[in-house]
Amino acid sequence: MAKIMNLEEILETLKGIDPSRDILPVIEAGFVAYSKGRVVVPPVGELIFDDPPGETHIKYGYIRNDDHFAIKIASSFRGNAGRGLNACQGLILLLSQKTGEPVCILLDEGHLTQVRTAAAGAVVARHFAPRNIRRVGVFGAGTQARMQIEYLRYVRPVPEVIAWCQNQEEAASYRAHMEGLGFRTATTFDPEEVASTCNLIVTATPSHRPLLAAGQIRKGTHITAMGSDTAEKQELDPEILRLADRLVVDSLSQGRLRGEMFKALQAGAIAEAKPVELGTAIADPGLHRQSDDEITVADLTGVAVQDIQIAKMVWEAAGRTAGGGGRNLGNGCCAPKRGV
Amino acid sequence: MAKIMNLEEILETLKGIDPSRDILPVIEAGFVAYSKGRVVVPPVGELIFDDPPGETHIKYGYIRNDDHFAIKIASSFRGNAGRGLNACQGLILLLSQKTGEPVCILLDEGHLTQVRTAAAGAVVARHFAPRNIRRVGVFGAGTQARMQIEYLRYVRPVPEVIAWCQNQEEAASYRAHMEGLGFRTATTFDPEEVASTCNLIVTATPSHRPLLAAGQIRKGTHITAMGSDTAEKQELDPEILRLADRLVVDSLSQGRLRGEMFKALQAGAIAEAKPVELGTAIADPGLHRQSDDEITVADLTGVAVQDIQIAKMVWEAAGRTAGGGGRNLGNGCCAPKRGV
Repeated sequence: MAKIMNLEEILETLKGIDPSRDILPVIEAGFVAYSKGRVVVPPVGELIFDDPPGETHIKYGYIRNDDHFAIKIASSFRGNAGRGLNACQGLILLLSQKTGEPVCILLDEGHLTQVRTAAAGAVVARHFAPRNIRRVGVFGAGTQARMQIEYLRYVRPVPEVIAWCQNQEEAASYRAHMEGLGFRTATTFDPEEVASTCNLIVTATPSHRPLLAAGQIRKGTHITAMGSDTAEKQELDPEILRLADRLVVDSLSQGRLRGEMFKALQAGAIAEAKPVELGTAIADPGLHRQSDDEITVADLTGVAVQDIQIAKMVWEAAGRTAGGGGRNLGNGCCAPKRGV
Repeated sequence: MAKIMNLEEILETLKGIDPSRDILPVIEAGFVAYSKGRVVVPPVGELIFDDPPGETHIKYGYIRNDDHFAIKIASSFRGNAGRGLNACQGLILLLSQKTGEPVCILLDEGHLTQVRTAAAGAVVARHFAPRNIRRVGVFGAGTQARMQIEYLRYVRPVPEVIAWCQNQEEAASYRAHMEGLGFRTATTFDPEEVASTCNLIVTATPSHRPLLAAGQIRKGTHITAMGSDTAEKQELDPEILRLADRLVVDSLSQGRLRGEMFKALQAGAIAEAKPVELGTAIADPGLHRQSDDEITVADLTGVAVQDIQIAKMVWEAAGRTAGGGGRNLGNGCCAPKRGV
């Protein structure tokens, strides 16, 4: 019988694990499998609603010769705020690749997408960030602007954070949240202050125009651009991708159609041959950052293999830990937990 | 929070309802909405597995201006029998069209697909079967060969059944099952015995060649061909579709690509203009059977709107009846049932 986990149980399970041991390696392994052509990811299914406006994406796929496959339902209904609901809604189904049986239903309300996205940022930083980080700069003040930093500390010490925000309210809220997590945090309205003081920069906005110009980027800087995941969104001047000593993207095939790589190709700033796929780079240390002077850029648009990996990880962790939530939906209502 | 229903709870809910009042009208309304262009059904998503061989289909869609939408995951792993499992596995998700929230997760293991398919046969019979049925003929001995008859009795008296089976074992098992349900049941290995004694015939096999020839079909016979749902499967001689006074198909667009309509078009036996879509026919009494002499044929390949309608119906019925299964996955494990 399928195990069912609601958000509370998923959060409880995540509390009981060590991201550096339990999350980052599985996300890394997912990217490597993807770049080796071992992942089957059909085109995304889509439903568009008019009244109220909303959309639902169905992302699904599997790693060959693995035990499970995943189907993620991710909806965005922007009118939800007026109902006191999150605009993003969703769940992930984990099913057996051997029998087709549903194994676990993760009613994560979109949270695991946030986790796997933050984990991808940390995986990138592990291989491309300078050894010593002076200060981390963040563009944005939303969930990813927070979680990218939370996960970054699993691969690098984070001495200080500075966030570029759009208004005082955003800045105050961001600072309060991050200081609550123990980060020394500053905010600014000036992109130059970020560019001139940080050697690791994360862009995490829904911007449709560049937030940073090529002339602002100092030697030795690493930038992870994770906000743009469509053909319209853009956070970096394409010239930044031209001057980068190393350019890595999570998916070459997606990068040709969306995100910073797409914009830079369109602008003629880079050749198709320049970007290296993240999974290829992870597997080859010669493709990682080689000196503290290099400028490196990572463009992340999000890949279904991350969803497959995070769903498997949470399901397995819930089975391992007595405290980890989830329940088997057997004949009785309160069936015993796995592994208890 | 989403309501979760396992197969046992779904079966319990189905026991508490009256199919002629609760199922047939909603399936009928679904077909009408579909034929009126009010249903959005994107292309089916598909995952193919090699080891062991299996496939998973993701069917999804919605009726415009309705409250919910549905996503059905249906898998077939033929090696499951060796593991003591059903080859067909699956579940249906019911989600809000207004917020994207999951509303109900129906772990039906494929059973609701059987119900909605049997219900479609009954809907067809209501409008196309002769008024007085002498004897019902069935080709096949599987789940649909049984359920088509069970649902048929909600629209017509069924004085006697005769099933064409492939061997003694199938015949004995079919007869035992149907007699257990109170049907006077005979079996045969001779198609002519079915054709010559029955004025309502249901074909429910995975055959790849015609089981009935045009010359065998008597005046006044209605045939529902529901076994073929691919471009390869076929149960009827295309000439039967030519000689039919009325030809109805559940989906014209699917019928152009699969099932008996596809085979008859390919053979040049019918023109594209001949078949009438079921939902159009339901809505117009002038398109129903007009006399006891007519030969009528229905070709069913299965439409996603049936899944949407059956999922909504079960969810609503479970909410109405105190005994109806299902539970809300709230903070507590045994949260109160809806409507209790």
